[in-house]
Amino acid sequence: MPELRRDPILGRWIIIAQERGQRPTDFLVEEYKVKGGFCPLCPGNEKTTPDEVLVYGREGGYPNTSGWQLRVVPNKYPALIIEGDLDKQGEGVYDRMNGIGAHEVIIESPNHLDRFSHLPPHLMLLTFKAFRDRIHDLAKDCRFNYVVVFKNFGKAAGASLEHSHSQLVALPILPRMVISELEGSLSYFNYKDRCIFCDIIRQELQQKVRLVCENDLFVTLTPFAPRSPFEMWILPKRHNSSYVEQDDAALAGLAAIFSETLRRLDACIPHVPYNFVLHTQPLRSGSLEYYHWHFEIVPKLTSIAGFEWGTGFYINPMTPEETCRYLREANL
Amino acid sequence: MPELRRDPILGRWIIIAQERGQRPTDFLVEEYKVKGGFCPLCPGNEKTTPDEVLVYGREGGYPNTSGWQLRVVPNKYPALIIEGDLDKQGEGVYDRMNGIGAHEVIIESPNHLDRFSHLPPHLMLLTFKAFRDRIHDLAKDCRFNYVVVFKNFGKAAGASLEHSHSQLVALPILPRMVISELEGSLSYFNYKDRCIFCDIIRQELQQKVRLVCENDLFVTLTPFAPRSPFEMWILPKRHNSSYVEQDDAALAGLAAIFSETLRRLDACIPHVPYNFVLHTQPLRSGSLEYYHWHFEIVPKLTSIAGFEWGTGFYINPMTPEETCRYLREANL
Repeated sequence: MPELRRDPILGRWIIIAQERGQRPTDFLVEEYKVKGGFCPLCPGNEKTTPDEVLVYGREGGYPNTSGWQLRVVPNKYPALIIEGDLDKQGEGVYDRMNGIGAHEVIIESPNHLDRFSHLPPHLMLLTFKAFRDRIHDLAKDCRFNYVVVFKNFGKAAGASLEHSHSQLVALPILPRMVISELEGSLSYFNYKDRCIFCDIIRQELQQKVRLVCENDLFVTLTPFAPRSPFEMWILPKRHNSSYVEQDDAALAGLAAIFSETLRRLDACIPHVPYNFVLHTQPLRSGSLEYYHWHFEIVPKLTSIAGFEWGTGFYINPMTPEETCRYLREANL
Repeated sequence: MPELRRDPILGRWIIIAQERGQRPTDFLVEEYKVKGGFCPLCPGNEKTTPDEVLVYGREGGYPNTSGWQLRVVPNKYPALIIEGDLDKQGEGVYDRMNGIGAHEVIIESPNHLDRFSHLPPHLMLLTFKAFRDRIHDLAKDCRFNYVVVFKNFGKAAGASLEHSHSQLVALPILPRMVISELEGSLSYFNYKDRCIFCDIIRQELQQKVRLVCENDLFVTLTPFAPRSPFEMWILPKRHNSSYVEQDDAALAGLAAIFSETLRRLDACIPHVPYNFVLHTQPLRSGSLEYYHWHFEIVPKLTSIAGFEWGTGFYINPMTPEETCRYLREANL
């Protein structure tokens, strides 16, 4: 019997249409092959990228030379550009503005073959620090209202470069997803006077059927109404709406659980393509009682066709309780 | 210079990041090949589908035999099932219900090789009648609140069968897309006391830069803030919120412009995969002054990666004014 489930924050309904005995190994994942060839993100090729805006691990030495552990550079083919003043215009019923923004690439390791799921712990930690430090820096630019941090891993998930990297885009406006999440969690808060994410965490720690793993500071869940099999959310246990306020100790806890989470996923479906996106408060907000920062990891296992496109209504062949069981029992 | 554009109904922003000199022929479209083999939708194989719920063109004869021009059958692998009572349950912060619904396949032609864009006019008209007649029939079932009508054409757009067909899903709840569109157009109506779609049509008929084609009753536009290159909307010129109220004369006008629209698209990018979705009012609404039914056609030309997924923020490499020019000048 199929089931309809509602995401409590967004009000997004999904259909769980379980295919009988669907197992992680039934998903077709493109074979993993190292293409090799020239890599603009490898050490020694620093001059082929735009000038770095952040570097960790290079002691002394010139900018844009080797010896680094992590580098952040502007995207060579940016979706938005950094120079210019914001110019907002109407045209009858329509609104437009010029495409001011920043688009950067976080190069997470000097080693071409490192995969993010198996990154050495110190590099994993540097990645999460780089997210924080870049958001902190971009927030000083008053033209920007939001920074989207995300990763595309694997061709099916939109990655075009092999070398482990994530991206960020600083935007002059709030994306719709952010607005919907803020509205949804505010409406719950107005009703209950509690953060909906805190309530979810409390319920999941009690029920334990969608709890993948946890440590002192963080928890990984398969969400109640997932868009895709093996979708996972990583949330801080203690209420906080802003990623940028996290100290190094918190980021160490995050790096640890993120690494475990991705290794569990990889053990279930080796080399599965996925996207992750950081969900955090807008740059110009003070601390929000009703919102809770977190990461969402969405494997690319099902195709998005007209139905999903037209309705925002996803069909998922596995329950999150089922995928949680696989993830928890994975051999690490 | 990239540009940010806002969809006036949904408030969805998109980035137009024009790639220099991008032309329709630059998009990689999978080669069109007829696979052939056994087809459950072909005449003679009626017994391999569930029993038909609607048939046109078979004069006399038994149900589920050949001689038809169009058939509607339940999906053999439905996402939702038709039998049972709605059972809504809460579980702490979460909500679920059993997956009651209908999932049907509209077989648009008896000829295996007919493509929807080039369907003979009488079959095109029957297809739009079938959409209307099935929605009308399903509306009698008080468990349903909405019927999503859509087509996936081409593998990249999610089609698994070659034989020309579209689908519908009857749902007990309103999809998010519908709620957002209703809210967006109501908020405009509350402000201006006019239908936003009527205002868009008026502006587009004046400006003519995004007007692909028109006839007495309908207009095809490239929308101001398209998610994908060559996205098109087909709207009735006269205000109406409900597809199911259209008479045969209106559907003949729709069939004519739909056919021209798809042939223009196919002339620009042969065999391009696409999805279309009917946007109409909920089953239980009376006529709405603020909402306007229409079709949205979205070619599958760009990949949806983490950024789009996480933000609902699309990046489009071509302006709608540019794609409109190509579509208008296409050799038919």
